Amino acid sequence: MISKIKPKSVEKTDLKAAIIGPSGYTGYEIIRILLKHPKVKIKLLIGNKSKGKHISEIFSSLSQIDLPKIKNLKTANFSNIDIVFSCMPSGNLDNIIHLIPKHIVVIDLSADFRIKDVKLFEKYYTKHQNPKYLKKFTYGLTEFNRNKIKSSRYIACPGCYPTSILIPIVPLIKKNIISTNDIIVDSKSGLSGAGRNTKQDLLFSENYNSFKAYGGGNHRHIPEIESCIYDQTTKKINIVFTPHIIPINRGILSTIYLKGNALQIQKALLKHYENESFIKINNLGEMPKISDVIGTNLCKIGVLQHNKKNHVIITSVIDNLLKGASGQAVQNMNLIFGFPEELGLDQHSFWP
Amino acid sequence: MISKIKPKSVEKTDLKAAIIGPSGYTGYEIIRILLKHPKVKIKLLIGNKSKGKHISEIFSSLSQIDLPKIKNLKTANFSNIDIVFSCMPSGNLDNIIHLIPKHIVVIDLSADFRIKDVKLFEKYYTKHQNPKYLKKFTYGLTEFNRNKIKSSRYIACPGCYPTSILIPIVPLIKKNIISTNDIIVDSKSGLSGAGRNTKQDLLFSENYNSFKAYGGGNHRHIPEIESCIYDQTTKKINIVFTPHIIPINRGILSTIYLKGNALQIQKALLKHYENESFIKINNLGEMPKISDVIGTNLCKIGVLQHNKKNHVIITSVIDNLLKGASGQAVQNMNLIFGFPEELGLDQHSFWP
Amino acid sequence: MISKIKPKSVEKTDLKAAIIGPSGYTGYEIIRILLKHPKVKIKLLIGNKSKGKHISEIFSSLSQIDLPKIKNLKTANFSNIDIVFSCMPSGNLDNIIHLIPKHIVVIDLSADFRIKDVKLFEKYYTKHQNPKYLKKFTYGLTEFNRNKIKSSRYIACPGCYPTSILIPIVPLIKKNIISTNDIIVDSKSGLSGAGRNTKQDLLFSENYNSFKAYGGGNHRHIPEIESCIYDQTTKKINIVFTPHIIPINRGILSTIYLKGNALQIQKALLKHYENESFIKINNLGEMPKISDVIGTNLCKIGVLQHNKKNHVIITSVIDNLLKGASGQAVQNMNLIFGFPEELGLDQHSFWP
Amino acid sequence: MISKIKPKSVEKTDLKAAIIGPSGYTGYEIIRILLKHPKVKIKLLIGNKSKGKHISEIFSSLSQIDLPKIKNLKTANFSNIDIVFSCMPSGNLDNIIHLIPKHIVVIDLSADFRIKDVKLFEKYYTKHQNPKYLKKFTYGLTEFNRNKIKSSRYIACPGCYPTSILIPIVPLIKKNIISTNDIIVDSKSGLSGAGRNTKQDLLFSENYNSFKAYGGGNHRHIPEIESCIYDQTTKKINIVFTPHIIPINRGILSTIYLKGNALQIQKALLKHYENESFIKINNLGEMPKISDVIGTNLCKIGVLQHNKKNHVIITSVIDNLLKGASGQAVQNMNLIFGFPEELGLDQHSFWP
Repeated sequence: MISKIKPKSVEKTDLKAAIIGPSGYTGYEIIRILLKHPKVKIKLLIGNKSKGKHISEIFSSLSQIDLPKIKNLKTANFSNIDIVFSCMPSGNLDNIIHLIPKHIVVIDLSADFRIKDVKLFEKYYTKHQNPKYLKKFTYGLTEFNRNKIKSSRYIACPGCYPTSILIPIVPLIKKNIISTNDIIVDSKSGLSGAGRNTKQDLLFSENYNSFKAYGGGNHRHIPEIESCIYDQTTKKINIVFTPHIIPINRGILSTIYLKGNALQIQKALLKHYENESFIKINNLGEMPKISDVIGTNLCKIGVLQHNKKNHVIITSVIDNLLKGASGQAVQNMNLIFGFPEELGLDQHSFWP
Repeated sequence: MISKIKPKSVEKTDLKAAIIGPSGYTGYEIIRILLKHPKVKIKLLIGNKSKGKHISEIFSSLSQIDLPKIKNLKTANFSNIDIVFSCMPSGNLDNIIHLIPKHIVVIDLSADFRIKDVKLFEKYYTKHQNPKYLKKFTYGLTEFNRNKIKSSRYIACPGCYPTSILIPIVPLIKKNIISTNDIIVDSKSGLSGAGRNTKQDLLFSENYNSFKAYGGGNHRHIPEIESCIYDQTTKKINIVFTPHIIPINRGILSTIYLKGNALQIQKALLKHYENESFIKINNLGEMPKISDVIGTNLCKIGVLQHNKKNHVIITSVIDNLLKGASGQAVQNMNLIFGFPEELGLDQHSFWP
Repeated sequence: MISKIKPKSVEKTDLKAAIIGPSGYTGYEIIRILLKHPKVKIKLLIGNKSKGKHISEIFSSLSQIDLPKIKNLKTANFSNIDIVFSCMPSGNLDNIIHLIPKHIVVIDLSADFRIKDVKLFEKYYTKHQNPKYLKKFTYGLTEFNRNKIKSSRYIACPGCYPTSILIPIVPLIKKNIISTNDIIVDSKSGLSGAGRNTKQDLLFSENYNSFKAYGGGNHRHIPEIESCIYDQTTKKINIVFTPHIIPINRGILSTIYLKGNALQIQKALLKHYENESFIKINNLGEMPKISDVIGTNLCKIGVLQHNKKNHVIITSVIDNLLKGASGQAVQNMNLIFGFPEELGLDQHSFWP
Repeated sequence: MISKIKPKSVEKTDLKAAIIGPSGYTGYEIIRILLKHPKVKIKLLIGNKSKGKHISEIFSSLSQIDLPKIKNLKTANFSNIDIVFSCMPSGNLDNIIHLIPKHIVVIDLSADFRIKDVKLFEKYYTKHQNPKYLKKFTYGLTEFNRNKIKSSRYIACPGCYPTSILIPIVPLIKKNIISTNDIIVDSKSGLSGAGRNTKQDLLFSENYNSFKAYGGGNHRHIPEIESCIYDQTTKKINIVFTPHIIPINRGILSTIYLKGNALQIQKALLKHYENESFIKINNLGEMPKISDVIGTNLCKIGVLQHNKKNHVIITSVIDNLLKGASGQAVQNMNLIFGFPEELGLDQHSFWP
């Protein structure tokens, strides 16, 4: 089903990239990364609402940057394009995926193609417009699906919360060293995770000085997490998951409550990820903070023995716009086209 | 053991209050409340480091306020004082409690007299200097110990985290409607909870844009919480507790993971607290946010059924400097001296 | 032109207040103040968009508050109402002012009736719908117009920036102790000043971590400031004014650059405001910060001699939602109805 | 006096860098930049207080980075070092500058060698320990002193405020198109500009929700600014300057009030900086915001005609830790060693 990619010779020419939906936060982040990436040129920006505008009219920080004006999909010329990043909100790419020429690699940052079970998808999102494409997409959590991604033309990048949760727990489930009946995840995210929508509850004054839980006990990311666990381990596991909003721009910290042995867990994670550039396991008892990873494509993980016997706490941190979105998208692009995975992606946090 | 208080006639004269350790955040908050309280006058400020200063040299917002200069303990004249609020960090009042004349009501905001078991106390804090006073003190969670507080001369106000956790869970444990083996508490606090100490990890730039867990799986508030549960229910329960730092000034949100039935739990809490002014139970599924209680002495509680069967999520919010510290201290003062508990305490949040 | 108010006997019954446009930040602030005010009851909430809702559906912090449901203007019953606070955005009250019964005191927080010159108004705002009412309104900067306000039925509360600027400079212009040709004002405001509008540039992520100037060198508050200076001093003065957005919720700090003598200026302000409860002049060289006044109806002013000869810097701070809006509105209500001006208004800042 | 540098062949080997005082914010920023710089290796870290530690004990974000342990100055081996960045607070390098071997390029980020007039320096700082070195140092505002920097061994990088102010105004003074008698500068800085000192007024809770002016009308950066203006234009000009603290981590915005013609000024700046990579002049009337430059070495400048005749407002923004400190330091290193000035420095802001 999955056709092999023959990456063009990157020695001779640069990759030519298009971005659909460039006017949100993940769109900006893709642009920022690609402008510094030594092997890619941005050749096409597509946005129906913003068509005809220069990108600097959308992001004042991009004044005086040499980029093409934004086109709408109908007038876009894909003939020279090698790769498309779709940064539209969920519920859009499924409408137009069939219009993108087949020779192009598509990396989607929305939820449209993450869950393969249409019924499950439609329970949490809206009616799927192109279910036959679901199987063409590979779930783009790079460290889990490296080989499949390498030979895929369609990548569904994981959600930001799932990335922060799956990376620490999947290896533990695989190795049978935690109780799978008692996984509780308390996640906290900065506001950029909610996108650049003009909603009252995203206003500055509504969030500054505050903090809240949301999601009603049944957040959309639960089925994504449980589906990925099943794909990776063939175990049907239900997790408890509550997301919260921190009044900062970027970053996710997931606190994961498990039953098991902390030292065994820390060692298992250290071993499992020892060759990964972007997954860092802290010493036992050292908990990472969000500022440790801002600006990077890293996931840092701390493991702690709780005073209550047999209870272990894991905290994992990512930059939701990087490893949780645009960074992982570029990591997948690097993988598919044969570049080093680290190319164009930072490993030292932007701080303070 | 506990002597009866005979409150002076508040019709004729105001209460005369002293504050020991007025230069931190809880000290400021006591001053702010008492300056507006219709039945109290601040007559004495005691601080060894700040002796000789006017309070406006410590808090620029208190310029042009008519308050006595700060004295040190030795030169302080307690003869007219009715009540002392001790706002010193833990490990100080136990050194000097015996120097405060016996006719004075003492309300301590530190941890010095919260845990009655000296060995347990010394495991988490330093050597106790006055263990014989431990029994004289009543644990000042007003809604739990109203009658004991009313007749006490010594009050140990609860910690901020314990207040936010005990209020929702103690009634549920009493009523046997949750599994006591599986209580997991994930708490988040603003930075004022760490006090006004000049430590590097409390600097602005170290916290803005970040978020972290701390406490090493064995935070000092765990024994306080477990002791209070035991006192109230005679059950020995171990909880899992992880505190986190939110980059805001005020507020605690505790997310509590329980096994039980959400509707039953919400109804039980509603019934239990129906006559309380400061405890508000939201409709089922409505989760409070920190900004709902900032500036108030309220504890607001939301109960939610999770998608995973039998799993319930409670979130409770308080202002850590009010219901979590100085507000509850004044509530206890009101109770002891026969004022309405609400006197001088706000119920409508300061927002945005 | 201005009819005398005969305030009802406040001994016997409370004032009955209506709020038009209660769903924004100044509306919430009026509600919060009046709920604590000992002489006022909120009897009517009017909002066309939010009609039929309970106020707690708009402000989650007001759950379980006993207030009437929101009505639209047509079905509102004004027969028992003594005072209306209009908290609508500018360009709304002028459309409906004639529909409010004549016996009611109207305190407007918008710009609709601040500038008496219709042409000047329409240059900066939209077409005025009721210019004949302009003369009925008194400019509600309490400390300047106390006598006129006392006998007015219609009050146009000043803008937040003008309040912070006029209080320090008008007495100096009156006394001829500064050069009126060289007044430069650099103001900074928290985001609540921009209201609760769902605009992209008010989103959390667009402002956190940032800071900007705005207003294009010709902000709407310039004619308001210059008009008030003229009314108070009969001098036609042009000021230079640039507003900026600080990523905080509340507070304005105006830095005012003048030519003159700092000590003379500080003494003149001290003398001028010596009997005012809400205007505080700091010692020479002590500059106030925004947190000194948050939660209060105060304006605090610092005066500083600059190293460059003859150059003086004044900084003034207010809480934009209190002295800059709802607090001054209540101060004016207190004045009109014969209550102490301080009633229900705080003087000690909410901090930290 | 200034000896010529003979940059080593960068084709064959990397530059070897040392950092003195690596444990503050500018130290971290130098490390972060150099870790990504393609032509430099960090070979030596020197810090007396932190000697013996690994850098990850100071910055948790640098866990698992391969860097040498921190040494004290006495045991440091400079034999292979090509360049030293001194990131110590002011008043330290002047004590030890003579101990650094003469073959090494020294780039100082403190104020120690910025002001050539010892008396003037000592009026604002402490006694200078090595005044004979003052003449050896070149003021490192790259765009002004490119030729002198290229042939210098000792560079005194400018202060952050001066950088944001001098870049826009010096060309205008040179061209005689503004009134030099009336320059007023109102600057606003994030808190990282105050360094990583454990002082009470740098605590999170003291700054969040607040904003203030400081500096007493005679800030240390005034003589630096006036000295540089004199060096560049031979004009003795006094400016009025007031710095303020914004509760954010990074960024400076300077609002500069001038008398002149906005269009002429904007065109003059555009022309003057047309070949500069890091200086960007916005279209007339477009004011930059701090988030436009965070993470970059840019200075962006907007020019605006005020409504009051002949009055012009300039706003300039920089990242205080980059163009205002470590970025400009690396730009100078690139210049001295013959690399492109942009090497290792970002031009697209890190946002949101």
